[in-house]
Amino acid sequence: MLTCTLCNKKDAIYMRRYSGERLCKKCFKNSIEDKVRTTISKYKMLEPDDKIAVAVSGGKDSLSLLHILADIEKNFPQASICAITVDEGIKGYRDEALKFAVKSCQELGIRHKIVSFKEKYKMTLDELTDIIRDKEENKLSPCSYCGVLRRRALNVAVRQIGANKLATAHNLDDETQTILLNIIHGDAIRIARVKPVLDNGHPKLIQRIKPFCEVPEKEIALYAYLKKIEFQSVPCPYAQTALRNDIRRMLNTIEEKHTGTKFAIFRSIERIRPALEVFAEKEKLQDCKLCGEPTAEKVCKPCEMLQKLHIL
Amino acid sequence: MLTCTLCNKKDAIYMRRYSGERLCKKCFKNSIEDKVRTTISKYKMLEPDDKIAVAVSGGKDSLSLLHILADIEKNFPQASICAITVDEGIKGYRDEALKFAVKSCQELGIRHKIVSFKEKYKMTLDELTDIIRDKEENKLSPCSYCGVLRRRALNVAVRQIGANKLATAHNLDDETQTILLNIIHGDAIRIARVKPVLDNGHPKLIQRIKPFCEVPEKEIALYAYLKKIEFQSVPCPYAQTALRNDIRRMLNTIEEKHTGTKFAIFRSIERIRPALEVFAEKEKLQDCKLCGEPTAEKVCKPCEMLQKLHIL
Repeated sequence: MLTCTLCNKKDAIYMRRYSGERLCKKCFKNSIEDKVRTTISKYKMLEPDDKIAVAVSGGKDSLSLLHILADIEKNFPQASICAITVDEGIKGYRDEALKFAVKSCQELGIRHKIVSFKEKYKMTLDELTDIIRDKEENKLSPCSYCGVLRRRALNVAVRQIGANKLATAHNLDDETQTILLNIIHGDAIRIARVKPVLDNGHPKLIQRIKPFCEVPEKEIALYAYLKKIEFQSVPCPYAQTALRNDIRRMLNTIEEKHTGTKFAIFRSIERIRPALEVFAEKEKLQDCKLCGEPTAEKVCKPCEMLQKLHIL
Repeated sequence: MLTCTLCNKKDAIYMRRYSGERLCKKCFKNSIEDKVRTTISKYKMLEPDDKIAVAVSGGKDSLSLLHILADIEKNFPQASICAITVDEGIKGYRDEALKFAVKSCQELGIRHKIVSFKEKYKMTLDELTDIIRDKEENKLSPCSYCGVLRRRALNVAVRQIGANKLATAHNLDDETQTILLNIIHGDAIRIARVKPVLDNGHPKLIQRIKPFCEVPEKEIALYAYLKKIEFQSVPCPYAQTALRNDIRRMLNTIEEKHTGTKFAIFRSIERIRPALEVFAEKEKLQDCKLCGEPTAEKVCKPCEMLQKLHIL
């Protein structure tokens, strides 16, 4: 067995190539928790009296984040933490994931709010998808609808339970993929929005924070495994992943050969973001004339989508 | 045989997927020449009285560019065109390429200036490489030295022959690879310098223009083939290409599945460049105390490199 670089015991189980560390189970888990603390402090993500909502899908990332934040929150008596899961209504997928989310919340004694598409939009994503495929000749994918409707459902739910921060489990891989995806999609200016703390400049839009933004995906997977967190591991049946998957594969190949590439991309964008933010015209937000939620247009994107599908 | 979309004759030989055109040989060649004219005009690359120097390596891109620019120049009696080749001194490679460069210049009746590393820096790249490998423990690759010394040699040669524009044959693939390379290297701000017309803000630094920046590499290869231009096709023996090659392969895979990706990247960066340019601090240039060329430091990069190798 190899020696752990941190505690010198002979049971290193992980070689962290980008830092040169070899880590035993305990030091590895500590290192992830420390990293999250450092990220939170570096980007001033949390205040001692924050009411934190964690977006929990039931996958490895969001459940690991919930466990770590729950532990951190214990030291702040004025803070509170709760979990929110959006149940889009995807048979054989979200129903399974939901069980894992419920289980973790029960174990941790954390309040868990579940918001369903069915209840909020009168239809499950499965039902919406049938309509989308009939009406739209596949111009927009189910994922485009799901993304817009899920983000809205989350934001409203966070407000309803009185939280002032929404923590999501986007990891270093997600963020670097999104950066390249934006450039490749011809939408480089959107890079400005790939950031650890996202303020949307409207009191109704809850600040979003990403405490995992500097943790590589595979380290979160190992963390979840070592912490024996049970999670949903099958991918979403709708996953429209062609381009993102190509980018993921390419980034993993490059990272394999040039260790530290993902961090380099992330930091590189950090440095140019101020310029992009000045450039990206701040949209003036108004109230959607149908639902009252903040929007740049007269009718917000979720309402527009639902109208097109004749659900509104 | 398929019908050419432009002339309707039944001999289309190329399917341009990103535009949907099927083209015959003649219309394909015309389309490339038209594209170069459009790019020149769109980015205001040339004036009717420009003295244009074309950087000619002897490969397909630079020789195709030379042929096209020579043709365009004919219509501007006050303009002039010449070719410059830097002979780095790479046995079995540049000597071969040089022959093709000389041949094309003779065919086109174009003045051809050859600048050699041997004459300018007292050593060929082959000789420099021996020293680099001994002295530097491979910290910098031969390509790093070659790039810096070649650019300097080109810039000085262009001034010496009295040209005021330097045309290089960087194509759409080169430019999009460089964009991603900069981001992946953690040097995103350098994206600001990947541009069709590069002014360096100093009278001694000749303006560089890239008339092929919107032409995909494979179309230039086909153009050279159809025009029966003879060119060097073996790669440089020093080519340090690991990361760029990974990016090239990835971009080609994505382009194959998502036609138009390279153009989308290029245009996307066009749009954010103004923001990056404001942000990228303009370096104050001074004269190098050793050679007098413009530089941001007291000693310019080429002199610094030569000093390290004890050649200066």
